[in-house]
Amino acid sequence: MHRQLILVQKVYTRVGLVLQTPPQKPFLKPISLFSKSLIPSSFRIFTTNLRSPLMDPQETSLRQALAGKQAAIDAQANAVRELKASKAAEKAAIDAAVEALKGLKMEKSSIEEELQSIVKSNGGDSKETFRQNLINTLERKLFYVPSFKIYGGVAGLYDYGPPGCAVKQNVLTYWRQHFVMQENMLEVDCPCVTPEVVLKASGHVEKFTDLMVKDEKTGACYRADHLLKDFCKEKLEKDLSLSAEKAAEFKQVLALLDDFSSEELGAKIKEYGITAPDTKNPLSDPYPFNLMFQTSIGPSGLSSGFMRPETAQGIFVNFKDLYYYNGNKLPFAAAQIGQAFRNEISPRQGLLRVREFTLAEIEHFVDPQDKSHRKFREVADLEFFMFPRELQVSGESAKKMVIGDAGTVNNETLGYFIGRVYLFLTSLGIDKERLRFRQHLANEMAHYAADCWDAEIECSYGWIECVGIADRSAYDLRAHTDKSGVSLVAHEKYAEPKEVEKVVITPVKKELGLAFKGNQKMVVEALEAMDEKEAMDMKANLESKGEVEFNVCTLGKSVTLNDKMVTIKKEKKKEHQRVFTPSVIEPSFGIGRIIYCLYEHSFYTRPSKAGDEQQNVFRFPPLVAPIKCTVFPLVQNQQYEEVAEQIAKSLAGAGISHKIDTTGTSIGKRYARTDELGVPFAITVDSTSSVTIRERDNKQQIRVNVDEVASVIKEVTDGQSTWADVQWRYPAHSSISADE
Amino acid sequence: MHRQLILVQKVYTRVGLVLQTPPQKPFLKPISLFSKSLIPSSFRIFTTNLRSPLMDPQETSLRQALAGKQAAIDAQANAVRELKASKAAEKAAIDAAVEALKGLKMEKSSIEEELQSIVKSNGGDSKETFRQNLINTLERKLFYVPSFKIYGGVAGLYDYGPPGCAVKQNVLTYWRQHFVMQENMLEVDCPCVTPEVVLKASGHVEKFTDLMVKDEKTGACYRADHLLKDFCKEKLEKDLSLSAEKAAEFKQVLALLDDFSSEELGAKIKEYGITAPDTKNPLSDPYPFNLMFQTSIGPSGLSSGFMRPETAQGIFVNFKDLYYYNGNKLPFAAAQIGQAFRNEISPRQGLLRVREFTLAEIEHFVDPQDKSHRKFREVADLEFFMFPRELQVSGESAKKMVIGDAGTVNNETLGYFIGRVYLFLTSLGIDKERLRFRQHLANEMAHYAADCWDAEIECSYGWIECVGIADRSAYDLRAHTDKSGVSLVAHEKYAEPKEVEKVVITPVKKELGLAFKGNQKMVVEALEAMDEKEAMDMKANLESKGEVEFNVCTLGKSVTLNDKMVTIKKEKKKEHQRVFTPSVIEPSFGIGRIIYCLYEHSFYTRPSKAGDEQQNVFRFPPLVAPIKCTVFPLVQNQQYEEVAEQIAKSLAGAGISHKIDTTGTSIGKRYARTDELGVPFAITVDSTSSVTIRERDNKQQIRVNVDEVASVIKEVTDGQSTWADVQWRYPAHSSISADE
Repeated sequence: MHRQLILVQKVYTRVGLVLQTPPQKPFLKPISLFSKSLIPSSFRIFTTNLRSPLMDPQETSLRQALAGKQAAIDAQANAVRELKASKAAEKAAIDAAVEALKGLKMEKSSIEEELQSIVKSNGGDSKETFRQNLINTLERKLFYVPSFKIYGGVAGLYDYGPPGCAVKQNVLTYWRQHFVMQENMLEVDCPCVTPEVVLKASGHVEKFTDLMVKDEKTGACYRADHLLKDFCKEKLEKDLSLSAEKAAEFKQVLALLDDFSSEELGAKIKEYGITAPDTKNPLSDPYPFNLMFQTSIGPSGLSSGFMRPETAQGIFVNFKDLYYYNGNKLPFAAAQIGQAFRNEISPRQGLLRVREFTLAEIEHFVDPQDKSHRKFREVADLEFFMFPRELQVSGESAKKMVIGDAGTVNNETLGYFIGRVYLFLTSLGIDKERLRFRQHLANEMAHYAADCWDAEIECSYGWIECVGIADRSAYDLRAHTDKSGVSLVAHEKYAEPKEVEKVVITPVKKELGLAFKGNQKMVVEALEAMDEKEAMDMKANLESKGEVEFNVCTLGKSVTLNDKMVTIKKEKKKEHQRVFTPSVIEPSFGIGRIIYCLYEHSFYTRPSKAGDEQQNVFRFPPLVAPIKCTVFPLVQNQQYEEVAEQIAKSLAGAGISHKIDTTGTSIGKRYARTDELGVPFAITVDSTSSVTIRERDNKQQIRVNVDEVASVIKEVTDGQSTWADVQWRYPAHSSISADE
Repeated sequence: MHRQLILVQKVYTRVGLVLQTPPQKPFLKPISLFSKSLIPSSFRIFTTNLRSPLMDPQETSLRQALAGKQAAIDAQANAVRELKASKAAEKAAIDAAVEALKGLKMEKSSIEEELQSIVKSNGGDSKETFRQNLINTLERKLFYVPSFKIYGGVAGLYDYGPPGCAVKQNVLTYWRQHFVMQENMLEVDCPCVTPEVVLKASGHVEKFTDLMVKDEKTGACYRADHLLKDFCKEKLEKDLSLSAEKAAEFKQVLALLDDFSSEELGAKIKEYGITAPDTKNPLSDPYPFNLMFQTSIGPSGLSSGFMRPETAQGIFVNFKDLYYYNGNKLPFAAAQIGQAFRNEISPRQGLLRVREFTLAEIEHFVDPQDKSHRKFREVADLEFFMFPRELQVSGESAKKMVIGDAGTVNNETLGYFIGRVYLFLTSLGIDKERLRFRQHLANEMAHYAADCWDAEIECSYGWIECVGIADRSAYDLRAHTDKSGVSLVAHEKYAEPKEVEKVVITPVKKELGLAFKGNQKMVVEALEAMDEKEAMDMKANLESKGEVEFNVCTLGKSVTLNDKMVTIKKEKKKEHQRVFTPSVIEPSFGIGRIIYCLYEHSFYTRPSKAGDEQQNVFRFPPLVAPIKCTVFPLVQNQQYEEVAEQIAKSLAGAGISHKIDTTGTSIGKRYARTDELGVPFAITVDSTSSVTIRERDNKQQIRVNVDEVASVIKEVTDGQSTWADVQWRYPAHSSISADE
C-alpha cells in the first residue's frame, strides 16, 4: 500500500516536540463556518430551486409584465375617472374607456393565473397532495406514527410500527451486508450517554448549535432561519404584486440562509418586521441554542453528560484499540449503527427532521499520503448524477458522469465510497434519476475537510441530504489526542532506517515573551504552523534583513519578528518509522431519511377495476419489503386454511416473512390491503394441490404446486431469480375477476 | 378462543360509568413492595447461597469448634501464666503446659484453615480467577472495553468491539427469528427520549428508585444496600472469630437485603457503625434516588423528559393502533428491541449492571378469561430446572420438571413463553445445567401481577436474572387509560345479545360529602372497588341494620355508612359485546446479561501442546460465533494467498462472515488466535486444489476441495449438518505439528 514513500519529509517542531505531520493552521476559517460544518451534513436540507439559478426567467418576465399591466390599469382607471368627471365626455367614449379597462384587468388576471401556477409548481401544490396521500397511508398502515400519541405526542419523535420496523431492519441488515461484511469493517457498539469531555473535544459542546429567537412576551422559541424562510416563501407564493426585484431579493435570502451569521439573520428579521407567528409579539435577537440533550451521569449531579449527537465519536475514541485489533495496519474501516439525538428547536418535515434517529456511520482510516483504494476499479465505471462544485457555481444542473472520469473527487477512497453508496441506495429502490452526489462548496466545508460529497435524494420536500461522505483529514483523531493526551496515531516501520531532512522551527520563548507578552502563545503557534516553504522564506528574510513581518491569523494582524526570536534550520536525522495521524473518510447515513425517501420513490396509486377508488401501492423490492408474501385462502373453508397453514410453515422454515389473511373479505380487497404494505407476492389458495402466486406491480399470476411454493418465493425474494424467470417456468393463471 | 363465556358478569359502577371489569383495589399492598416490583426483575441480582439455606452446617460447626478452641486456648494460657507466676512450679510442668498451649494453637489454626477454605469457596476464590482470566481475554480481544477509556472511562458504560458487536447482532437476529418471526409478533421501534407524563403513568417517576446514602462531609454517594452487603460479606469472609450466631445474623441480613425498607436499611447501617468506605465519614440516612436519566425536550426547558428505563411503555401506549393492526383480534404479541437507561448510583459487576443496555421485550396481550396458548403442546414435554415458590420457601433446590406437569405456572401462555425462553437460551449455548426458572415469591411480586418467573443463569457472580417472564394482568394498560383518558381496551362481539346481571353500586355523593367532607373521594373509590360479594353483603347489612362499618384502606380506618349514602342493586341488561382490558404476559430479556453469561459458559482453557502456556477458547455454537471461519495460507506465498482470496470470495457470496489471516505467524499460533475469538472453523490453505478445515473444540481436520469449501462451511454453520456429518463424508487430515 505505502510503497511510494517520500524520502525527505517535512517536519515541524512544537515546543521542542518533533511532530511528524504539519499541525492544523489555527483558525484558517472564521468560526461561524466551522460551526456550520460541524453539524453533520446529513442534517441540513437544501432544495434544488434554492441552490440552482435564483430566479426563473419566466417568473421574472411575468412579474414584470404584471407590474406593467398594473401600471396600465392605473393609468386607464385614471383616464376613466377623468372622462366621467368631465361633463364634456360622450357616453360612447366613456364606455369604450371602461371596456379597455376591463380588457386590461382580464389580461392582468390571466398573467396572475400563469404566475400563480409557476409559483405553485415551484412551491409544489401537487407535491403536497402526493405527500398527504402518502403520509395518510403510512400512518394508517403503521409504517410510522407520532410517538406518545395518546398523550398528544411530542414534536420530532416517531414510532415505527410493524411494517416500518421491518423495512428499517431490512435496510440495516442490507447495510451491514453491503458495507460491514463486504469490506470486513470493524463494527462497534457504543453507548448513547456520553460524558461532556468527549463532546468538548469534538467541538459539539461549543459549536453544535442552531440560532433561536424568543417571543419577548411569552418566551416561545423559534428557529431564526425558519421564520425568515417562512416569511420569504410566503411572500413569494402569495404576494403576486411583489416586484421582480423584491422577489429576486427574497430568493437570494432563501439561497443564502444557511450561511447567515447571527447578526445577519437578526438584521433581516428586523428589516422585514417579522414577529412571533403565534402572537405577533416582537422577537428577541437570535442567539445560539445547543442541540444536544443534556443529562447528568451518576447520582451526584456533578458529572455532566449528553445523549450523543452522532455515533462517530465512539469510534474515534477507540481508534487505538481498533488499530491494534486490525494488526496495526492501515487502511481499515470501523462502523457503527445506533441512535443519535438532536434536541431540535421546532422540528418540522416529519421523518426528515426528528429529535432521535438512527445513524449508520463508517470511519475509514487511511494513510494521508496514500488514499488509493484497492477496490476502486470495481466502481470506476459506474455512471450517475454528479453535481461538482463547478456546476453549482456556474448555475448548471447535475450531470451524469462516470465516476472514474469525474476527476473532481479528491481521492480514490472517497470515490470508492461514493460508488458504493450509489449501489446501496439504488438496490434499496431509490430512483437513480432522483439521486445525485453534490460536492460541498468551499464555504460549506470545515477548514480541515479535504472534500465532501452528499448523496441527495429528491422528494416532495426538495433535494434531501441522506448520506454525507466526507474526507475529514486528521481532524477528529487530533482533537481527541489533544484533549485526552493519548496519542491516536499510526506507525509505518521502514524496511531500513531512512535519512530524512527536516525543517526545525524553534521559537525562542524568552524573546517572544518580552516582545509580545500575552500574545506570545498565538505567535508561537503561528510560527509552528508554517509549512516548509514559508519557514525557509522566513529564514532567508531573517538572514538577509534581520527582521520580518509575520501575519498571525489568530491576532488578526502582522507582527515584526527579529532573528533572535526564532531559529529555523534543516536537520538530517535517521528514522526507523514514520508516525502519523491517519486521515478519516466518513460516510454517514441518516437511515430514517433514506427510508422516508424510499417511501416516496416507491409509492404510487392505480385506479381499482371497479373505478370507485384509487389503490395505493408501494413498489418495494423484495429486499426491502416488510413482508415478503401473504397467503390467502380463496374462501373460508377448513381444507384451504390447512393448506395455507402448511404453506406458512414451509415459508417460516425457509426464513421468509409472511402473513396469513383468513378474513372473509373479497380477494380483491385482500390484494389491495397487501399492496398497501408493499408485499411483493400474494399466494391464493384456491385448490389443495396447486395455488396461484400474484406479483404486486404487474398483477400477473402463475400456478405453482403447493410443495414448490416456498422455494419459488425464496428464489424471487433472495434475488436468485426474477419474476420474469419464474413466469417463464410456470403456467400463467388468469383470473380477471379476482384482482379488482 | 373465547368460547367459554360467563353469562352472568360482575360489573361495577364508578361515578355512574359502567365498568366491565373490577377496578384495581387501591393500595392492596404497601407501597414499598410495589416499588421493588416495579423495577424490572431482570435488574436485580440474587445469588444462590443467599436464597438457599442460610448457613452451611459445616461452617456452623467449624465456627463453633473455633470458638471452643479459643476458649480452651484462653484457659490454657491462663494456666501457663499462673504456673510461671507461682515460684513453686517445676520447669517440667511449665514446659508441658506450654506444649499443650502450642498444641491447642495448632489445632485452632487448622480449624481456621478449614473454615477459611469453606468461606472462600462460598465467596469464590477460584471463581474470581476464572472470571479474571475471562475478562482479560474479553477485553484484550475487544469483545468489550470500558467506554471512553482514553478519558478515564465512565462507570457502567461499555463498548462492544468487533467480536462483541457481532455476537450481539447474532443473538438479536436469532431472537427476532425465534420470537418475532415464529410467532408473527408485531415489532415496533420507539424513541428512547420519553416525556414525563408517560413515565408518571407507569409509576417510574415516583417509584423507580434505589436507596442512597451520602458521605456527610464530601457528598459522595453510595447505594445503601451495597454498603450493608459489603460489610456483611467482609465480616463473613475475613473475620474468623465471628460467632456462629453473629455469622447467621449477617447471612440473614444478606438474604433479606432486597426487601429492606429505607428505615430498616438505615437502622442496620447505624447498628453496625458502617461509614463511608473512602473517608470513614458518617453517612446520611438512606433516601430514594430516581434511576432515570433526566433531560429536557425542546428549547424552552419547560418540558421534562427521561431516557426510557425499559422499552415496554412504547408498546403499551400504542396498544390501540396495534390491536387495530391485528384486525381487532386477541391474542397478539408486540415486541421491541432497543436501548434502555438506568442511572445506577454506583455500578459494579461489569456487564451485569450497567447504565445503558439493550432490552428485548415482548408484550403478549390476552383475554384475561382465556390465557390458553394454541402452541402450548409444542413445549409441554420440555424438561428443565424449575424453582417454584414452594421449593424456595422449604429451602430445597431447583428441580428438573416437565413444564406441562409442573402445575405451578399460572397459565398456558406463561408456560409457553417459559418453554420458548428455555429453547432460546440453550440454543445460544447457555448450559442447561446452570439455567433455572425461578418463580417470584409472593412478596417479590407487584400486587397486580398474577405470576412471575425469572430465567436465572448461574455464573461466577451467582444466579443472575437474565429474562423476566411476568403475567402483569391489566395493570399497564389501565394505568395509561387512566392517565391519558384514551380507553385501551379490547372488544368481543357476542353472536347474539346476552342478558347480563350486574351489581350496580351508586354512591350518593351529596350524603357522603356532608358526612366525610375532604375524605369523600376516597370513600367513593373504596365503595366502587368492592367486588360482588362485598357489595351484596353490604346491601344485606344496610337493609337489616340501616348502617354498616366500612374499612377504607386509603384512609387507614373504618367509617360508618348508612343506607342513604349508597344504593346497591342487581340489574339485568342486554349486552352486544364484552369490553375488557387485556392482560399482558411480558417476557423481558436483558441482552447484555445473557451475552455475559454466554461468555462464561463458553469459555475454557486448554494447555498448549508445547505446554508453555494455556490457550483460551470460546466454544460458541456457529449461530453465535462472531466470525464463522478463518482462512490461513499455510505459508506466505502468492499462490496460497490467491486461493485464500478465492475462498474468501465464495464465503462472502454465501453470506458467511470470515477473516483472512496472512501473517507469517505459525499456524499453531493462528489457531490459538482464532480459538480465542470462538471461531468454530479454520481453513488452512496448504495446496491449490484442496485445503483442510479444522474444528475448534476437537481440533480434528478434514480435507475438502477448494470449490466445495464454502458450501461445507455453510452447512455446518447453518445447522443443516453437524461436524460429525461432514467428518464422515470427507477424508481426515492429520497434521500433528500444526495445532500446538
